[in-house]
Amino acid sequence: MVRELRIAVLASGQGTDLQSIIDASEKQMIDADVVVVLSDKKEAYALKRARHHTIPAFFVDPKHKTREEHEHAMTRILKEHNVELIVEAGYMRLLTPSFVKQWYGELINIHPALLPSFKGVDGQGDALAYGVRISGCTTHFTDEDMDHGPIILQAAIKVKPQDTRDDLASRILAVEHQILPRTIQLFAEGRLTIHGRSVLISPGDSWLDKYPRLDDVLYGEGY
Amino acid sequence: MVRELRIAVLASGQGTDLQSIIDASEKQMIDADVVVVLSDKKEAYALKRARHHTIPAFFVDPKHKTREEHEHAMTRILKEHNVELIVEAGYMRLLTPSFVKQWYGELINIHPALLPSFKGVDGQGDALAYGVRISGCTTHFTDEDMDHGPIILQAAIKVKPQDTRDDLASRILAVEHQILPRTIQLFAEGRLTIHGRSVLISPGDSWLDKYPRLDDVLYGEGY
Repeated sequence: MVRELRIAVLASGQGTDLQSIIDASEKQMIDADVVVVLSDKKEAYALKRARHHTIPAFFVDPKHKTREEHEHAMTRILKEHNVELIVEAGYMRLLTPSFVKQWYGELINIHPALLPSFKGVDGQGDALAYGVRISGCTTHFTDEDMDHGPIILQAAIKVKPQDTRDDLASRILAVEHQILPRTIQLFAEGRLTIHGRSVLISPGDSWLDKYPRLDDVLYGEGY
Repeated sequence: MVRELRIAVLASGQGTDLQSIIDASEKQMIDADVVVVLSDKKEAYALKRARHHTIPAFFVDPKHKTREEHEHAMTRILKEHNVELIVEAGYMRLLTPSFVKQWYGELINIHPALLPSFKGVDGQGDALAYGVRISGCTTHFTDEDMDHGPIILQAAIKVKPQDTRDDLASRILAVEHQILPRTIQLFAEGRLTIHGRSVLISPGDSWLDKYPRLDDVLYGEGY
C-alpha cells in the first residue's frame, strides 16, 4: 500500500481548490490525503467542505493577534497533524517571512494567472483589465515575496472577447482543479527539486495520463 | 484587385520577423506590402534582406543626433513612402512619446514574451531565468510606455526543461512569424479597433485558415 502524503490546506473562501484535492484523493488519483484544513475566515465554505468529508477543520481567528501569534497558532495545529505539505488554496492572507522560511519547500500556492503577470488578489480581473489574450494559472513554492516563488506547473487558456471577470475566473478555476492535484502528486512522488528559481521535475510514472486534458489549454509541465 | 496596405518595418537586427512579412506578402497571404525598411544599425541584416527583395532600405544614423532629430529623419522617409502601418520588428530603440503619439494606432510592436511578463530587451532570457513553464509572444499597438500598449494577438508555448536561451528564442520566433502576418492582415482588413486597453477584432473572413498551425501552441486571437 502506498503511503499517503499528509496535506494541510489553507483557504479563505469557497474552497473549490480544496475540493479538487479531496476529490483526487478520494478517487485515489493522488497519493495524498488532506488531514487538516485551516481558515482565517470563520464563514469560509472551505471549512464546511472539510467537515463534510470528516476532515478536521479549524478557524484560526486572526483578530486581536499579531501576525506572528496567528501563525504560531496555525503552526501548532499543523505540527499536531504531522503535516508534510501545506497548500495555500485561495488563502488571502500574506504569510510572514519567518513562517515561509520555516516551511520553505513544503509550502505551495496556486495563483489564477500566468505568473509573473498579475500577482495579487485579483489575477483574473487584472488580466481582463489589461486586455491580454491569454491567461492561466500557476502553482509555485511560496517564498517571502507575494506570488513569486519557484514555479512548479503552469497552464494557459484563451481569454475570450466576451468574457466577464466571472467567465474568465471560472475557466481558470477548471484548470486550477487540474494542475493542483498534479502538482501535489509530483510532490508526493518526491519528484520536485528546487534549484534557485527553477523547479526540476524528475522523470517518473506516466501520472499525467490519469488526469484528463481539457481542450484549448496549454499545459506547461514538461520534464 | 485588393489594395495592398503600405507597411514600413523598423528593425535593428537579423530581420527574421521582417522576412516573415515579406514572405507572407509574396505568397499573397496578406493584403500588404513592405514598402520601406528603416534601421538604426548600419550592419543590420534586415537592410540586406530588404534590398534582396528590392525594397527601399535606409540606415538612419542615430549618431550625433537628438532622439527627436533621428525620428524626424525617419518620419520624413515614412511620409515619402506613404506608409499606413509601421511595424517594430526587433527594433531595439525606444521611440519618443511624440513619435508614438503621431502614429498611435498605426504603429505596432512584436515582443518575444507573454506581456505584461518580461518586458524589455531580453524577454526570452528573462523568462528562462524566472523559471516559467509557459512563455510566448505578443503583438500590440505601441504606446508611450515600453512593451505596454493594447494587445492585439498572443500565442503561448511551453518552456522545456532542457531549453537554452537560444532554444527558447528560436521556438518563440517560429510563432512570432505566425502571429505577426496575422496581425498585419487583421489591420489590413480594418478589423482592429482600440477601446482603451482592449483591441476589438471584428468578425471577418476565415483568414486564420491560411496560416498553418504549429503543434503545442495556444493561439490567443478570438473574436
